[in-house]
Amino acid sequence: MLCCKAVQSPHPFPVFAMPGSRTAPDHPSVICTVDVVLLTLSAGELKVLLHQRPQEPFSGAWALPGGYIHAQQDVSAWHAAARVLQDKVGIVSPYLEQLATYSGPERDPRGWSVSIVYFALVSEDLLPADQRGLKLCAVSHLPRLAFDHRDIVDLAVARVRSKSQYSSLPVYLCAEQMTLPQLQAVYEAVLGEPINKVSFRRKIDELGMLEPVEGAQETGQAHRPAQFYRLKPEFRRSLSLALRGLNA
Amino acid sequence: MLCCKAVQSPHPFPVFAMPGSRTAPDHPSVICTVDVVLLTLSAGELKVLLHQRPQEPFSGAWALPGGYIHAQQDVSAWHAAARVLQDKVGIVSPYLEQLATYSGPERDPRGWSVSIVYFALVSEDLLPADQRGLKLCAVSHLPRLAFDHRDIVDLAVARVRSKSQYSSLPVYLCAEQMTLPQLQAVYEAVLGEPINKVSFRRKIDELGMLEPVEGAQETGQAHRPAQFYRLKPEFRRSLSLALRGLNA
Repeated sequence: MLCCKAVQSPHPFPVFAMPGSRTAPDHPSVICTVDVVLLTLSAGELKVLLHQRPQEPFSGAWALPGGYIHAQQDVSAWHAAARVLQDKVGIVSPYLEQLATYSGPERDPRGWSVSIVYFALVSEDLLPADQRGLKLCAVSHLPRLAFDHRDIVDLAVARVRSKSQYSSLPVYLCAEQMTLPQLQAVYEAVLGEPINKVSFRRKIDELGMLEPVEGAQETGQAHRPAQFYRLKPEFRRSLSLALRGLNA
Repeated sequence: MLCCKAVQSPHPFPVFAMPGSRTAPDHPSVICTVDVVLLTLSAGELKVLLHQRPQEPFSGAWALPGGYIHAQQDVSAWHAAARVLQDKVGIVSPYLEQLATYSGPERDPRGWSVSIVYFALVSEDLLPADQRGLKLCAVSHLPRLAFDHRDIVDLAVARVRSKSQYSSLPVYLCAEQMTLPQLQAVYEAVLGEPINKVSFRRKIDELGMLEPVEGAQETGQAHRPAQFYRLKPEFRRSLSLALRGLNA
């Protein structure tokens, strides 16, 4: 294969000291990046944030926000993903979880590449007002995406749906305070199907993730005022998990 | 952002060599490796295969079998993991799944490193007779391991236990043919707790992963002969999943 030639270069790693010890001595280096699938609910639909690539490869195409690992700065790939999210989207995600790592010689025209992919869920009101170069797309109607990002979004959506069956994950899509009917609508939008109200309430009780906001009730509605809830502090960065799924 | 500089290179995509273009131009390269958590059942206990490191770092210490990605040879990190398993352990794993990716500047003294970790489950009789430099260790009594491999084994065991609740995963630990009592013992060893026989049989029915081996029955036992089963061909490399866990 052609990439073997890399090792014949007189200066295989011109930038930093002795990277010969950093990859197998007779193997070319690998591109190491992170990508983030940032999901939100907008107009009742699950949407993914896309970023228009300003440069080659795939200049002008829509892609997931991503970037190189900065080895002298990032404490881990998680931190690289958080940095990318802050730099390219302008937000600090409350929840960022590793999805999977994609790899191979074909996925990036620059060479053999590894992308460690994270997914994040945020409330739409946390997204910046200025979204130049960014757009939200319904996961059910994606445009053509750069690299293998379409496969990555599909996997993220499947993971979020599956995990929402038995966890507090969809709460990260809500505003800081929500009523139970609002939360049920969010779960239904994520799962793509209606949920029985009684089993939903039972599951939320079992998850034990919410606390009522004292004195806060929804007003101005035709029905009787609903209590507002928020995530308990201990679940703001880690999930509450149930033993059984919503449909079990 | 720093990576924008990539497009200012006179030869932004020289195809080979110039690994400066393979990482962000002003960032040192990252070590890219794979590691494999190979689990088996031995004497009724869940065990992990360890490899004694023949070289620095951690020369002489026990570690997971692993190695660099060989960019000119491997089609993906999965293939790199399969190659490592074949080269260092001498087996072709029937089931190899991505566990997680570990990363950071501290985990490998050689520099900022990424390890894409896979787990594999095999029947003990598939392990080679000659195990020089290898040993099986009960996951409940691990020696001190190199790198962050102790954390990795712990995560793999937790993942296998959780996934075994609702899938055919433990079948990969069995010999090619097994009786239902043998399979139940394997599930119990993996989960670390007894399972009710009736709910176990119902779950196995629901998973629909087994087919009887015609004319094959266990003999020489005090009780009445038990039918031998084997995995249906379609589940030899992909799992059968149930909606609910064994304890649900």
